[in-house]
Amino acid sequence: MTTTAARSLRQRRIDTLHRLEHDVDAWVATAAGDGGAPYLVPLSFVWDGATLLVATPAASRTGRNLRTTGVAHLGIGATRDVVLVDGTVTAVEPADLPEEDAEIFAAKTGFDPRELTTAYLYFHVLPRRIRAWREVDELEGQELMRDGEWLVGD
Amino acid sequence: MTTTAARSLRQRRIDTLHRLEHDVDAWVATAAGDGGAPYLVPLSFVWDGATLLVATPAASRTGRNLRTTGVAHLGIGATRDVVLVDGTVTAVEPADLPEEDAEIFAAKTGFDPRELTTAYLYFHVLPRRIRAWREVDELEGQELMRDGEWLVGD
Repeated sequence: MTTTAARSLRQRRIDTLHRLEHDVDAWVATAAGDGGAPYLVPLSFVWDGATLLVATPAASRTGRNLRTTGVAHLGIGATRDVVLVDGTVTAVEPADLPEEDAEIFAAKTGFDPRELTTAYLYFHVLPRRIRAWREVDELEGQELMRDGEWLVGD
Repeated sequence: MTTTAARSLRQRRIDTLHRLEHDVDAWVATAAGDGGAPYLVPLSFVWDGATLLVATPAASRTGRNLRTTGVAHLGIGATRDVVLVDGTVTAVEPADLPEEDAEIFAAKTGFDPRELTTAYLYFHVLPRRIRAWREVDELEGQELMRDGEWLVGD
């Protein structure tokens, strides 16, 4: 059930960027490299204007899946106000992450992987496809980015 | 940051069953059978006391992944009050779903796959593993069900 008209693509892009800049947590779906085993976990993230930065233990299921497959599917927002991001993923050792990025990550997310005894990895998620919708009336026109390019200007 | 003490396993089971009975939407993560491609989408569900029932177009990515792999990983609740369900999945043709189940599904979710021109499938998700936590202090003791058996009594 909807209470408002479907948003324009331009409005969805504005709302999506607002979420990327201000939301703290994302649902991060990954898959095992050998097929068939999906894994879902909430992780905090930072958006730097081009990529999402997340961190998880190197030995965790998500960490292993990201290193093996190099792809992730992220859900941000509520189930009736979603932003879905398909991205390619690059692992970054804590020692290789610029100090400033690590400080911003710690300040926003409230945890600092550099301080922990568990071995963490950071991961840059570069969006290739972004979709956003609220309710059924917005399923049409859900695609905002394809092949890494925004389909609507700012 | 937490404002309350970590919940007991018993309390988490109570809270988890409450969510399964009263929440409407879940994040459903699946994977392509050939490995590496995770897919995430919000779907409405009904809990019948033993399985979750969802429905999605037969030809959708989620529909194809569920039929190919027979497994799903569901996230229910908020990112800081999560219930994660690993389950095995069985597809059910609309014609094969008991009338009463279809009516309950339509009443709770607000949509009735039997009425749509797009070919839908229902899917029963049988939980094999259930975990629940709110914040970092609840990561320990997150497992409530393993191999289909609750680890704590009601």
